[in-house]
Amino acid sequence: MSEASYDVVGIGNAIVDVISKASDEFLVEQGIEKHSMTLIDEERATSLYALMGPGIEASGGSAANTMAGIASFGGRPAYVGKVRDDQLGQVFGHDTRAGGVAFDVPAATDGPATARSLILVTPDAARTMNTFLGISSLLEPADIDPELMAKAKILFCEGYLWDVESAKQAMRTAMDLVKTNGGTCAMTASDSFCIDRHHADFVELCEGPLDLLFANRAELARLVESDDLATGIEWVRERLAMTFITLGKEGSLVVTPDETIEIVAEEFGAPVDTTGAGDQYAAGVLYGLSQELPLAECGRLGSVAAAEVIEHLGPRPERNLAELAGLR
Amino acid sequence: MSEASYDVVGIGNAIVDVISKASDEFLVEQGIEKHSMTLIDEERATSLYALMGPGIEASGGSAANTMAGIASFGGRPAYVGKVRDDQLGQVFGHDTRAGGVAFDVPAATDGPATARSLILVTPDAARTMNTFLGISSLLEPADIDPELMAKAKILFCEGYLWDVESAKQAMRTAMDLVKTNGGTCAMTASDSFCIDRHHADFVELCEGPLDLLFANRAELARLVESDDLATGIEWVRERLAMTFITLGKEGSLVVTPDETIEIVAEEFGAPVDTTGAGDQYAAGVLYGLSQELPLAECGRLGSVAAAEVIEHLGPRPERNLAELAGLR
Repeated sequence: MSEASYDVVGIGNAIVDVISKASDEFLVEQGIEKHSMTLIDEERATSLYALMGPGIEASGGSAANTMAGIASFGGRPAYVGKVRDDQLGQVFGHDTRAGGVAFDVPAATDGPATARSLILVTPDAARTMNTFLGISSLLEPADIDPELMAKAKILFCEGYLWDVESAKQAMRTAMDLVKTNGGTCAMTASDSFCIDRHHADFVELCEGPLDLLFANRAELARLVESDDLATGIEWVRERLAMTFITLGKEGSLVVTPDETIEIVAEEFGAPVDTTGAGDQYAAGVLYGLSQELPLAECGRLGSVAAAEVIEHLGPRPERNLAELAGLR
Repeated sequence: MSEASYDVVGIGNAIVDVISKASDEFLVEQGIEKHSMTLIDEERATSLYALMGPGIEASGGSAANTMAGIASFGGRPAYVGKVRDDQLGQVFGHDTRAGGVAFDVPAATDGPATARSLILVTPDAARTMNTFLGISSLLEPADIDPELMAKAKILFCEGYLWDVESAKQAMRTAMDLVKTNGGTCAMTASDSFCIDRHHADFVELCEGPLDLLFANRAELARLVESDDLATGIEWVRERLAMTFITLGKEGSLVVTPDETIEIVAEEFGAPVDTTGAGDQYAAGVLYGLSQELPLAECGRLGSVAAAEVIEHLGPRPERNLAELAGLR
């Protein structure tokens, strides 16, 4: 492959999170499925926001969060996603770049507003997301820079992007370019309902361009159409070079054609907000892989990053992950 | 006085805080005076923001924070301040209303952007603020609704507003209206440099319309032009019905013509960010006064509210203050 300039290039929906505490009753009243990501339109975003309590804003977006985590480990990430030239777009661009992520997609000068996700955090620290995609849904193949893709050791894609046709095509374009250049293609399953919506596509990806997959247990079950974990493990083992299955407090599994490695969960403090836990797990794993560390160590770094992010509000690391993991 | 509909009406700069961790070295490099509030123009706001690390956004503004605290105690506050109809203005309006504060000033449809304060939090949890006032500085006497002022038991004004001529006039208009209706006028000294900039005005206020003053030790020293605390206490005792002097970890003092009451500081956890500590102290005190509680209890409520806000990022309460203070 060509000289790699970036350890990982992430592609995803560029989103500012609006995080607010909410009761379980509020979710029920609003007919919102707990733990899930629901796509909403601007009208619903406005009406739901009016019903929510006070919040804080933090830059988010699954793949962007992962890239921020990789930077915090000391890796070299880049990001592709679309914002408007509005205040939230400025916030997203600032936080992403200031966190050490190369992000050169220019902000759009017209079109819908920057995406925001109204995130309801219940007392059990679970997060439930209601996302207005805005301009983020206009990501298209023309936004994929072949030069950037040629510099990627690993491409990391959000499953969420499958919800938008043009973004899906952008992702396929990126995968083709990275494969051509000898890079690795990774994806996160993102959300079990998202898997349901695009099941055939996800199966095809696992049997085609993807080398690495990240999924939690619910996502794996939807993907392989079985609640049996052993069945899921064998399904991915037959199709992918590596699969990282997150099991919450029970840690995670690394599945390769040859072995299954159990990784324990880390815990630093009482869970406050699980937003970004999966994203940061992926950050630790991808950083480790980019440095060619042993798989068990990659998993440990994922557990450390996930544990850090759930102990505070917001989806990106607040502490230096390299230090926290004892890497420096 | 007429039937009061609001326990406290606050007037201040309507600001969204952009909170970022920073080193002491960064403050020195940037020539920023630690602990202070520096007014900056839009150009400096842009260049400083570009140099700062990733942040989170939270609605702020001194008097607005105080009103949010009063609502959290179960009181009935209202707020007057100016935002634009931009995304940060929407955030400010949402958070303020959702926190239980009546806020009916319409967002301006033209003019500068909503105010933002770039807040640098150093490892010792101290906050240093760099504020671009934007549209907030266009608050003027016409924004003061006589009907609202007639409904105020207590008017609470920010010293910060003295930095802008039209806002200063708005405050004087509000004070006149409240006094005419038999209400109480309170003010926070806000910042020692702000006192220096408008020293004669602040002295005149203490000798004229003000009944209550909030000041920390540095602000008191600038106001009375003496570093001696006993001198400061006697100065305010001769001029004001009540003065609340905050002393950080050493608690606070309530000074009246007849007595000086010592209030101990509360502490719930390790300090994370002192932003809003003075604002929340004022919230506890003003709530207590509006409920005609004994002065020592008013001070205790102030200490409880201040202790809650410094244990997390952001200037408004995250926990219910009435519950935390054992009021319900």
